[in-house]
Amino acid sequence: MIPAALAKLVAEFRKLPAVGMKTAMRYAYSVLEMSTDDAEDFAAAILEAKNKIKICSECGDYTDADVCSRCLTADKSVICVVGEPKDIHAIEKLGTYNGVYHALHGLLDFRKGISADNIRIKELLSRLDGVKEVILATNPDICGEMTANYIAGLIKPLGIKVTRLAHGIPMGSEIEYADEMTLGKALSDRKEM
Amino acid sequence: MIPAALAKLVAEFRKLPAVGMKTAMRYAYSVLEMSTDDAEDFAAAILEAKNKIKICSECGDYTDADVCSRCLTADKSVICVVGEPKDIHAIEKLGTYNGVYHALHGLLDFRKGISADNIRIKELLSRLDGVKEVILATNPDICGEMTANYIAGLIKPLGIKVTRLAHGIPMGSEIEYADEMTLGKALSDRKEM
Repeated sequence: MIPAALAKLVAEFRKLPAVGMKTAMRYAYSVLEMSTDDAEDFAAAILEAKNKIKICSECGDYTDADVCSRCLTADKSVICVVGEPKDIHAIEKLGTYNGVYHALHGLLDFRKGISADNIRIKELLSRLDGVKEVILATNPDICGEMTANYIAGLIKPLGIKVTRLAHGIPMGSEIEYADEMTLGKALSDRKEM
Repeated sequence: MIPAALAKLVAEFRKLPAVGMKTAMRYAYSVLEMSTDDAEDFAAAILEAKNKIKICSECGDYTDADVCSRCLTADKSVICVVGEPKDIHAIEKLGTYNGVYHALHGLLDFRKGISADNIRIKELLSRLDGVKEVILATNPDICGEMTANYIAGLIKPLGIKVTRLAHGIPMGSEIEYADEMTLGKALSDRKEM
């Protein structure tokens, strides 16, 4: 009974992360309730973002210039390596990191056939001139750990300090509810007070 | 540090219902990660839904025809009156109602200056020929109750049966946690077993 154009819009919204049927219907109805101008602005914003935003030739973050403003001004002696540009945003929000980033745009994943040639590792190696520390901030899952270990194996022999984000009990959580892997990691990586 | 086109897309996503900053960022990044074709399909679906979908001249539901398929085939002796077309979808999903609907596209709200002339009440009154029952299924809040009472006052004198969706304790919930108004309503509307 739902008109085809509405069903299609619902299907498009369902492609967004973690959007199920109910949420997609809600979003689609809200588009129908918008003014035509607002709906046109929404559609134009999608196309404009996709057309104007490219990848910084140095760090791989999203930017509308050839080189992003961070790469032009930040301290280039420290590089923080992340899987995706959205991870940069999470660290930037802290406001405490002054170095540059390097987005790999993927992680090693042999099940999916993603090898070192498919992610921006070569580009990382070409940026190491004058670098004092490389912080590996890939996700703490199998692919993230494997990628971090692989990169560490390439960079440590060059005499550059390589660090990894600390793993452990999340702040504000309860030890009782920590999963075994996290608790084990927190115990083995314990710090002297 | 976020490119302007990305910030604009985030702002557009924030206009969707119950979408905060974090979710909007997540959606915007997923658009950047889409293929250009997929992003174009998404934008086109918004415009197409907005252009092709209009309001059924009888019931006020969204349709791509002049009169929706339900109005052409369903039992017209019962009309279920709802605030918005999305409420029709919720009742249709039950699969137990065979009558037609009437979407008011709004509820009486004197604080916002919405009076009987601003919602589709006149259109409802013009559909009453041969109708045996009008079910008032507006939301159980102040505006919904007021609208239901107003419409009942117009239709009951015509000798047509007017009913209202039952209010009470939601199925599967616990009496202990029911709010006072709901529990009071459930007690006063108690049914003989």
